[in-house]
Amino acid sequence: MTYRAPVSDIVFTMRHVAGLDRAVADGVYGDLSVDLSQAILDEAGRFANDVIAPLNREGDKHGATIENGVVTTAPGWKEAYKAWSEAGWNALPGPVEYGGQGLPTLLNSACVEMWNAASMAFGIGPVLTMGAIEALVAHASDDLKSRYLEKLVSGEWTATMNLTEPQAGSDLAALRSRAERSGDGTYRITGQKIFITYGEHDLTDNIVHLVLARLPDAPAGTRGISLFLVPKFLPDGTRNDVRCHSLEHKLGIHASPTCTMIFGDNGGAVGWLVGEENRGLNCMFTMMNNARLAVGLQGVAIAERAYQQALAYAHERRQGRAIGTTEGMSPIVAHPDVQRNLLTMKALTAAARAICYMTAEAIDRAHLEQDPARRKTAHERASLLTPVAKAFSTDIGMEVASLGVQVHGGMGFVEETGAAQHLRDARIAPIYEGTNGIQAIDLVTRKLPLSGGETVRAQIAAMRAVVGRLLKESTPAFGATAPRLRDAIESLDRATSYLLHALASNAQGEALAGATPYLRLFALAQGGAALAEMALTANALGAGGDKDPAHAGRIALCRFFAENIAVGAKGLEETVMGGAGFLQDATLALAS
Amino acid sequence: MTYRAPVSDIVFTMRHVAGLDRAVADGVYGDLSVDLSQAILDEAGRFANDVIAPLNREGDKHGATIENGVVTTAPGWKEAYKAWSEAGWNALPGPVEYGGQGLPTLLNSACVEMWNAASMAFGIGPVLTMGAIEALVAHASDDLKSRYLEKLVSGEWTATMNLTEPQAGSDLAALRSRAERSGDGTYRITGQKIFITYGEHDLTDNIVHLVLARLPDAPAGTRGISLFLVPKFLPDGTRNDVRCHSLEHKLGIHASPTCTMIFGDNGGAVGWLVGEENRGLNCMFTMMNNARLAVGLQGVAIAERAYQQALAYAHERRQGRAIGTTEGMSPIVAHPDVQRNLLTMKALTAAARAICYMTAEAIDRAHLEQDPARRKTAHERASLLTPVAKAFSTDIGMEVASLGVQVHGGMGFVEETGAAQHLRDARIAPIYEGTNGIQAIDLVTRKLPLSGGETVRAQIAAMRAVVGRLLKESTPAFGATAPRLRDAIESLDRATSYLLHALASNAQGEALAGATPYLRLFALAQGGAALAEMALTANALGAGGDKDPAHAGRIALCRFFAENIAVGAKGLEETVMGGAGFLQDATLALAS
Repeated sequence: MTYRAPVSDIVFTMRHVAGLDRAVADGVYGDLSVDLSQAILDEAGRFANDVIAPLNREGDKHGATIENGVVTTAPGWKEAYKAWSEAGWNALPGPVEYGGQGLPTLLNSACVEMWNAASMAFGIGPVLTMGAIEALVAHASDDLKSRYLEKLVSGEWTATMNLTEPQAGSDLAALRSRAERSGDGTYRITGQKIFITYGEHDLTDNIVHLVLARLPDAPAGTRGISLFLVPKFLPDGTRNDVRCHSLEHKLGIHASPTCTMIFGDNGGAVGWLVGEENRGLNCMFTMMNNARLAVGLQGVAIAERAYQQALAYAHERRQGRAIGTTEGMSPIVAHPDVQRNLLTMKALTAAARAICYMTAEAIDRAHLEQDPARRKTAHERASLLTPVAKAFSTDIGMEVASLGVQVHGGMGFVEETGAAQHLRDARIAPIYEGTNGIQAIDLVTRKLPLSGGETVRAQIAAMRAVVGRLLKESTPAFGATAPRLRDAIESLDRATSYLLHALASNAQGEALAGATPYLRLFALAQGGAALAEMALTANALGAGGDKDPAHAGRIALCRFFAENIAVGAKGLEETVMGGAGFLQDATLALAS
Repeated sequence: MTYRAPVSDIVFTMRHVAGLDRAVADGVYGDLSVDLSQAILDEAGRFANDVIAPLNREGDKHGATIENGVVTTAPGWKEAYKAWSEAGWNALPGPVEYGGQGLPTLLNSACVEMWNAASMAFGIGPVLTMGAIEALVAHASDDLKSRYLEKLVSGEWTATMNLTEPQAGSDLAALRSRAERSGDGTYRITGQKIFITYGEHDLTDNIVHLVLARLPDAPAGTRGISLFLVPKFLPDGTRNDVRCHSLEHKLGIHASPTCTMIFGDNGGAVGWLVGEENRGLNCMFTMMNNARLAVGLQGVAIAERAYQQALAYAHERRQGRAIGTTEGMSPIVAHPDVQRNLLTMKALTAAARAICYMTAEAIDRAHLEQDPARRKTAHERASLLTPVAKAFSTDIGMEVASLGVQVHGGMGFVEETGAAQHLRDARIAPIYEGTNGIQAIDLVTRKLPLSGGETVRAQIAAMRAVVGRLLKESTPAFGATAPRLRDAIESLDRATSYLLHALASNAQGEALAGATPYLRLFALAQGGAALAEMALTANALGAGGDKDPAHAGRIALCRFFAENIAVGAKGLEETVMGGAGFLQDATLALAS
């Protein structure tokens, strides 16, 4: 079983939840039409299916290898990357002035989903290059831009993010790598960085490292960190003083080399400042925010792939006799409990996809709207949604991949089947680019207070508007969607008020204690509202004569989510609002 | 970080929830005292810590290997098994007349937890031997008993369960292996069996296979299956016609050889009938029920191990600054979100342990009570609890192991850390010995109707009694335990009535659709009640002057479970009672 890019679901989500049609009509996307978007995604889907997906299992088995500091990617990897970048996929979101196609984040997000579903170990590399491009566009000098952007946009070179050090993971204040001014405008970088994705590889002739380091006179903490561009090969063609020391032996994404990088063995790697001295974290945030959305898309991607594989197996595998049949074994997809597993997988995936694409559209409007006030609103909406997109999607990526193993029964535990690989691959996404706990804390402590709470209030109002439309809907297939979803949104509303109040009254412990369940609650309400929006559109299209059977499926999926998943909202609300009791006695409970 | 058997938690759970003290007082356990139990468990804990646990990582790396049909276990495995069985641990629950110590299932369950926490790949082997012993004791002829039981009880030989065939997993009716009568009272067995745990190995001189097969004149379906004993070496020392064809390449428990077994390459393996012809499934159920509890204990075990490792890491790893501290980085255990993860891990583990031990005690009473009516009541309670013990414990095994990876951050994804191995190992337990979906269906369709629903009603009444005691409790540390737990139990009660009604009105689809969320709901209410029982005892002991700080921890843990986990009950109730809407349109939703 390989991957078939779900282009029609993707396009439907882009158009009818993320607002592609509306954005096109508003002129936000310039010349881009819905038809052109569809054509691009069809083509991307074919590339993902035909070129990348077949590499996934081999990549897992071979992994990337290192010998004398030289990293070799898995068989076929180099050719696939070359074909992929030459087909222009890396350049898709890149700025036009550097050879990019300047297409929206929304469109690229759909592509990122497909690359990562085809192979997460393949897809993660370009995520970092694209992030670096954004950071350089926003902060680099014209000289650096002209030297590096074109080749990064085309994908002829790749880029990395060098943040983590052994003592500095979630807490970048502890960062120790050093940068010294050399006197000629460049800097000499020394230090060790760990967990550097595609830090070294054989896919391209050069690798551009973006590295966080401290100047000798920098203040302590995060305000003393600067960002440097450190190429593997210097402009004169000589090798820079940076090397890969070792690769991690990881649970999953084996084909993606995770490197320990050593800078400055021989006096210091030559680096160029990006942005201003001591303002490096700011620059890094530019690339981190979009990387967070991309990691969320990895969660969607692995969930989609696991779902497809489980569904195919459930159609093929016969065991037991389904209700209403009289002889022979039924395909297990006919058993209610298996249906529940598959529908849970599909509904969670669809909800996470919708949230990620909504986030992408908000990012686009934050850049492309003419009106500054609309840009600000969109920027705050993107800021609010980004941690939800990252954490929820990657959490459900694991849940769905685990259910996928379960649907396979004993075969799921056998590596050759491939279901287990998805579970192994999925496990990194809730961790990297800021753990999901960090995302939840970001959501509660930094995003809820945006515009005095108005940003989150507006988002909840939009969810309520969907319920308003549902309440007017009399199609029986919606079942109890409206009341279940309304309850979930009201739970979210109350939990939001509670947390805003806790923050305002300096009850930081309560806010932090409730952060993770709050993020899940937000996602259940938002995801349910998004699926309902799609279902309402599907229903209207069906009523208008569109015979696509997918429409009835969208209503059924929305109903399943509301009646079986969104009903968890009330318990999460109680956890947020009454669950902080553990703060008092946690030490006792964890000691005994 | 290695494993430290949590003997005091184990003993507290046995005594104050599972009812060890009561059973001893009632005379159910003969000479066994609480002190002796404690002494045995202390010793078992030392063995698990010192001898088995150190093998776990090496076993994962080396795995078991096969060459020309000969299976070699990982380095150290053979010596450890020999030391373990010679120390009498295999014989602990075995019948006295065959050299066993005749100790209760409850005591052995605590040991099984410890062996499996030390190394799940090690612990699973004896589970099968012990199951086979029970089946032989219950069903085998005296001749077979005298030939095999003594060496199986001592552990000099091991045993296997040969059920699964490629086309017959959850559905044993599809079984095809054949048995022909040879005329001398023995049978000739031919066929292929897959997923046979420890089907071949080098730990012992002989291996006793219990094999399900069909006689030529057997009726179709499950009523035509017989059970045979097929030894690797025949009584005269010659090799039987059975061999291991290959080992599975698995996600986890690498050191446990999972074999494809071929019976009858050369005319048929010699086998002896166990029990009556065509009644083999009955005999197999004897061993399967206890194996189900043992697999539940594996879930508890891996959860405990993952928790211990995550807790140790959280004390050691410093990142960020906790609320109320002013300089330097805090250990991450001081951060509320990490505390939530760790408390969730610990609370789920403790609840699952309590449910498993309660099940074990019910199994003991079902065998050991004098009064037949009490035996029947206990047997039905054990029957009711077994699927919950198996499925809930193994589900939370995965959840806890995954949280354990998360607490480690990036290090959790690196294999050397060991957290990832727990996740990989844990993944099989929800699948084998009947998938958790099968367990849920068993609970709803076969266990709820026991004694016309009285068995489950009595269990719910016992949970309510705990809430009654909680309501009289004024210690502030209990927080909202009483109302939260009461709500969960009332949700369980309503969902139970709904399902009993659905079964009575032949709405089988609704019952099957709700099975999995119902099992979870049952476990939340039962687990919460069990933790509350422990907390009430801890509180009383504390009030009585017992200064053990673990008592306050038990109250805090119970509160955390009630306020943060049991609150999921309402959503599960709604899912059970209103979530079956998907039955109508599942095909549409899964097709689109």
